[in-house]
Amino acid sequence: MKFCSECAHPVALRIPPDDNRQRFVCEQCGVIHYQNPKMVIGSIPVWDQAGDTRVLLCRRAIEPRLGYWTLPAGFMENDETTGDAARRETEEEAGARIDLHGLFSMMNVPHVHQVHMFYRATLLDLDFAAGVESLEVALFNEASIPWDEIAFPTVGETLKCFFSDMRKVREGASFGFHAQDIFKPIWRPD
Amino acid sequence: MKFCSECAHPVALRIPPDDNRQRFVCEQCGVIHYQNPKMVIGSIPVWDQAGDTRVLLCRRAIEPRLGYWTLPAGFMENDETTGDAARRETEEEAGARIDLHGLFSMMNVPHVHQVHMFYRATLLDLDFAAGVESLEVALFNEASIPWDEIAFPTVGETLKCFFSDMRKVREGASFGFHAQDIFKPIWRPD
Repeated sequence: MKFCSECAHPVALRIPPDDNRQRFVCEQCGVIHYQNPKMVIGSIPVWDQAGDTRVLLCRRAIEPRLGYWTLPAGFMENDETTGDAARRETEEEAGARIDLHGLFSMMNVPHVHQVHMFYRATLLDLDFAAGVESLEVALFNEASIPWDEIAFPTVGETLKCFFSDMRKVREGASFGFHAQDIFKPIWRPD
Repeated sequence: MKFCSECAHPVALRIPPDDNRQRFVCEQCGVIHYQNPKMVIGSIPVWDQAGDTRVLLCRRAIEPRLGYWTLPAGFMENDETTGDAARRETEEEAGARIDLHGLFSMMNVPHVHQVHMFYRATLLDLDFAAGVESLEVALFNEASIPWDEIAFPTVGETLKCFFSDMRKVREGASFGFHAQDIFKPIWRPD
């Protein structure tokens, strides 16, 4: 940020009164321009047939991590709820319609000023198709997931937790809620 | 937003290519200025003595809702996690040190472009004091909470869910995770 978005005067980085952090402050009109983390919201769209649980992934057509696989997810917009955002991103990136279930994971990614959240979901049909931000979309079970080509740590951790919970759910347990803080930029499977 | 924060040229509200929402776009340098929801993070600081469960509330010294009671909470900052934010806000607004437990509630407030989250927490001592944004801070049990003077719907709903869960916890259950979408601006107890 170089200029005030209200009056076009240059901004200065300084600590306002009654604050303890540097902010972009307009020296002309006095507006303080706060910058806060953003939410990235997505879904885990599941297709289950005769006990073969498969998850819909998208291969990214855009940077960052072009060509790598991700769960459908993106920045939450104003005027929507986290559930709205999960459904919208799944429709936009994977052309897929889902029933949304509980929030499954919430992962802090402080070095990029983001919080990522993923909802469990059920695919309503197999009539999905890559959106403009995806090269292809496909269903994978745990064994076929391209674990070495996952785009983001939050997606890799969410998928690991999902298949781990899935085994417990088959034995009568419930899905958990998984909160993690992630500090590493690139994810590798264990 | 009236001017581009990168080049000071006036911005226009229009739908960029490959998008479906109006954004503030700079007609000179082309930067698209996205606006996204913010997270408000807080805690439910609990002091439990001989089965009398009390929660720390702050009476607001600032608008909006000056003079009304709230759980300690505020806007999450860049470079911190949701847990960091809950601890920081509790320290800043109530001068209180806490042990943080699980995420208890997540409430969408789409009409103000916010998502509110509250963590369960245990007060480490009774050495708390009002911060600059609070007129006073005090401990309340369910019966003594000023239910008609609660600042925000997300705080009222979180407190209701907390004391409801608390009764179940005394009978052996676990605390739940409570997700709600809230569309009403002012909260009234049922």
